[in-house]
Amino acid sequence: MSHRSDALPVPSGQTRSQVLRDQSIYTQLLEVTRHLQQTMREHFVQLMSRQGLLQERRHTQAIREQEALLSRLLCQMINLLQSGATGGLELQVPLPSKDSRDDVRYGQGTQLSGQPDPVPQLSDCEAAFVSRDLSNRGIDIYALYQLSFQDYNAYQKDKYHKDKNTLGFINLGTSENKLCIDLMAERLQESDMNCVEEALLQYPDWRGQPFLREEVARFLTYYCRAPAPLDPENVVVLNGCCSVFSALAMVLCDPGEAFLVPTPFYGGFAFSSRLYAKVELIPVHLESKITAINTYPFQLTVDKLEEALLEARLEGKNVRGLVLTNPQNPLGDIYSSDSLMKYLEFAKRHDLHVIIDEIYMLSVFDESITFHSVLSMKSLPDRSRTHMIWGTSKDFGISGFRFGALYTHNKEVASAVSAFGYLHSISGITQHKLCQLLQNTEWIDKVYLPTNRFRLREAHKYVTAKLKALEIPFHNRSSGLYVWINLKKYLDPCTFEEEQLLYRRFLDHKLLLSCGKAYMCKEPGWFRLIFADELPRLKLAMRRFCDVLEEQKQDLIAKQLEDAIRE
Amino acid sequence: MSHRSDALPVPSGQTRSQVLRDQSIYTQLLEVTRHLQQTMREHFVQLMSRQGLLQERRHTQAIREQEALLSRLLCQMINLLQSGATGGLELQVPLPSKDSRDDVRYGQGTQLSGQPDPVPQLSDCEAAFVSRDLSNRGIDIYALYQLSFQDYNAYQKDKYHKDKNTLGFINLGTSENKLCIDLMAERLQESDMNCVEEALLQYPDWRGQPFLREEVARFLTYYCRAPAPLDPENVVVLNGCCSVFSALAMVLCDPGEAFLVPTPFYGGFAFSSRLYAKVELIPVHLESKITAINTYPFQLTVDKLEEALLEARLEGKNVRGLVLTNPQNPLGDIYSSDSLMKYLEFAKRHDLHVIIDEIYMLSVFDESITFHSVLSMKSLPDRSRTHMIWGTSKDFGISGFRFGALYTHNKEVASAVSAFGYLHSISGITQHKLCQLLQNTEWIDKVYLPTNRFRLREAHKYVTAKLKALEIPFHNRSSGLYVWINLKKYLDPCTFEEEQLLYRRFLDHKLLLSCGKAYMCKEPGWFRLIFADELPRLKLAMRRFCDVLEEQKQDLIAKQLEDAIRE
Repeated sequence: MSHRSDALPVPSGQTRSQVLRDQSIYTQLLEVTRHLQQTMREHFVQLMSRQGLLQERRHTQAIREQEALLSRLLCQMINLLQSGATGGLELQVPLPSKDSRDDVRYGQGTQLSGQPDPVPQLSDCEAAFVSRDLSNRGIDIYALYQLSFQDYNAYQKDKYHKDKNTLGFINLGTSENKLCIDLMAERLQESDMNCVEEALLQYPDWRGQPFLREEVARFLTYYCRAPAPLDPENVVVLNGCCSVFSALAMVLCDPGEAFLVPTPFYGGFAFSSRLYAKVELIPVHLESKITAINTYPFQLTVDKLEEALLEARLEGKNVRGLVLTNPQNPLGDIYSSDSLMKYLEFAKRHDLHVIIDEIYMLSVFDESITFHSVLSMKSLPDRSRTHMIWGTSKDFGISGFRFGALYTHNKEVASAVSAFGYLHSISGITQHKLCQLLQNTEWIDKVYLPTNRFRLREAHKYVTAKLKALEIPFHNRSSGLYVWINLKKYLDPCTFEEEQLLYRRFLDHKLLLSCGKAYMCKEPGWFRLIFADELPRLKLAMRRFCDVLEEQKQDLIAKQLEDAIRE
Repeated sequence: MSHRSDALPVPSGQTRSQVLRDQSIYTQLLEVTRHLQQTMREHFVQLMSRQGLLQERRHTQAIREQEALLSRLLCQMINLLQSGATGGLELQVPLPSKDSRDDVRYGQGTQLSGQPDPVPQLSDCEAAFVSRDLSNRGIDIYALYQLSFQDYNAYQKDKYHKDKNTLGFINLGTSENKLCIDLMAERLQESDMNCVEEALLQYPDWRGQPFLREEVARFLTYYCRAPAPLDPENVVVLNGCCSVFSALAMVLCDPGEAFLVPTPFYGGFAFSSRLYAKVELIPVHLESKITAINTYPFQLTVDKLEEALLEARLEGKNVRGLVLTNPQNPLGDIYSSDSLMKYLEFAKRHDLHVIIDEIYMLSVFDESITFHSVLSMKSLPDRSRTHMIWGTSKDFGISGFRFGALYTHNKEVASAVSAFGYLHSISGITQHKLCQLLQNTEWIDKVYLPTNRFRLREAHKYVTAKLKALEIPFHNRSSGLYVWINLKKYLDPCTFEEEQLLYRRFLDHKLLLSCGKAYMCKEPGWFRLIFADELPRLKLAMRRFCDVLEEQKQDLIAKQLEDAIRE
């Protein structure tokens, strides 16, 4: 916020003394808010950097003190807001305007709930930090949840709807494919989908119902072009790919051990590795710049893997595996089979497991590019340590089904992961629907996939044309539901703090995007933008996107002017 | 096995030398198996007694050695079995017979899979104990899963079916209500159940979809007779009550902290508190005998709670809560509102949370008894530390839906538990069905509940008449899906080892029951038997039950004779 003025506009129709009183409350509020923000940031950085939370029995004194401070600051804010309210200060959420200083009245606590009254939210927040009811672990989880899902929850409470809520949030931050809901809804209403037989209503096989595991094995054999039929006994079905990832982290690592992950990297795995497993994700930082080593942006090379591993081991970290996403998220890159083989050989050389997430494997919309599944490889360097994850959330646009599958040649890993079925299983009736969906190869090949690819391509074309018009560099021309865009030119200075402010400005305009920091990206200024949305909503979202960038540009110009005058 | 002879029967149609060779292999096999069994038992006892697994970074040397020994023993068994197979030894699973020595050929490894070839199972098992792929935690989880679900998994693979598999397992061990599948199937096929709108197919609100939380609040307000409307913001929906319990254990306790639980006590919570939360369940042992203190069997008194808490605290344990199940499982008792108030006051006095599981609240089939939900109480001693769990698995017989709900007045507990929705959510389409189901009060009140109660009463009457004829004492005349039966007279000596052997004999006859040890019962000889099954299957199950007890009785007589001859 360094480049913004603290002076407040004088609202029309108020006496000067009223304005002064309100200004004074505003100024205090602003100060307290900033202090709060700073303290929170430090607190979370500290939370983030704490390794092996479980080993720590008690919070350190410093963290306790920080929590007490946060609580006091929040109380101060509430008191100020309340005294403001009784003194006639208007606390309703103002409409978005081009006034760069709106953020003063339009702070985080209010704009995200979509509710005019900020007090209950703050009370919640305050309560958590002075908790006598939650354990230390519970407090950590509460904070992790708020940090990870606050904006998503705001979106859930205040979703855009073309008739009922035109001012609601549009979410281009969460990776969802909304392009084929018509096809899917039609398919799900067919008569084969509804089955209520006894076995579906009772407790399941915790590894996933045998009929579904058989179907998943057959499906993956076919779509991954496996050299031999895959074995249903090697399949474990849980409620979502993050559950599968979390379970793998639990059984392959002890607390405090680590996986290597090339970054930028899907953020959901960060939450999943922290909630239960307490496994560290060590970034293998990739760079956007093309150099002698990087023949294309964000290229993953074995040298980079070797270097990151060596460094981690020198720091005494116990690295147990390498996590890859192919097609890559958020980059949209597809690994060539040569590259993939090299990464697998690297892992083999160092006794590392490889977890490979292929959740976008059927969302390759550039048909000139061939995707190579790890399950298609005739000879894997380390068969028993190669574990593949797939689900229907992205390729079939049904993230609400909560379905994720593990395929591993390692029977003991499959068995150990099965234990998690008890707490991560899917309802029987949903398992039935999934089985029916996957087994209809004819519909998938002839109707669903061609339509989905066509619509992905069209939506991608629409969004990238806009980006080109704005001269915004982007990455991804082949797969997935997203483009990885470079908004560095809108940041001055180009820091993660400014990235965060721009992110919040998008939120102010009811547009949810994901920022690079959430992907552990080393360079500030990158954002992931989902394009797999229906055109009218996507158009409106891009209008909001342009508005924000225009506002941001005006701000930068004003700031440069101010700087020039000052000099 | 102490009372059984090692001598083997001579199968017909074999030469004497063949028999001798087979006998010799059998004898060796038997010895190795027994050694293995003993070692495994010790190993698991050690695993069980290890507190705070997470704090321990490495297995102790002794445990490692035990694992190596287990592995060697299993290899020996495989070699023996293989040499037997090539030498013409028949390893097919024999039909159950009255020969008490069948257990020699009919050991655990073979009979549970329902497959004739025991080798793959043993290889699996062996692999786990010599694992280089799983982490230490992964090995623990593998072992916990095997220990907890081995028999259930055998049932899943080989379920009884009246036409297709008449020799399959009947499960009177898992608490399922199969009495109203006809009503439920009919209801689930009605047109209001199928909805595939966009929001159901996309990522959900992780606390549970708002429409479902609203419905749960309304449903609980009505059926729990809450003095004021319950608040949907206090509801969190996860995929099953065990997920809710696990999440509560995560946020209310730090690893190694504890809950008090009156025993006998539902075993599923033991698994759920161990997999992730590493929370100890400290038993408050209740006794079957009626005395001056116990006015009825297994009575829970505040004195017993005080005593258990004091003892735990003297041992340095950090007790954070009390877990109650009402109606009680496996006892079927319903707490009077006076008793319940006393337990809550006890908790309040000692700053303990109370988690109260009311999953059987609508399964009270003795209509002269009134159930009092904790949510019906006008003034709770400690409102912010009272957390209630309910789900549809038992009362509606749809455990396959994987639905559990938390109701807590404590907003920060509700918020912290919401974090778990990310890894424990239910599919949107299932949430829709649940909402439709719960909101149809007319059908529930006029059709479902009266029918369900009638059928529970009839099935209970049938099973208890059988038990009376066999002169088997039992507990529970009012609620739930089970009777708690006393089979002490069939055990000699009356030990947990003999209880386990009787349990396995039921399994040999393809009947799954639950034994008292799984409920942390202090007295050996108790079993829980589920009666909420359709009559033809229940009849067959009771026939198997009687056969086992007859066999067991014959064994006891033979043993007493042997003892008498010896003297």
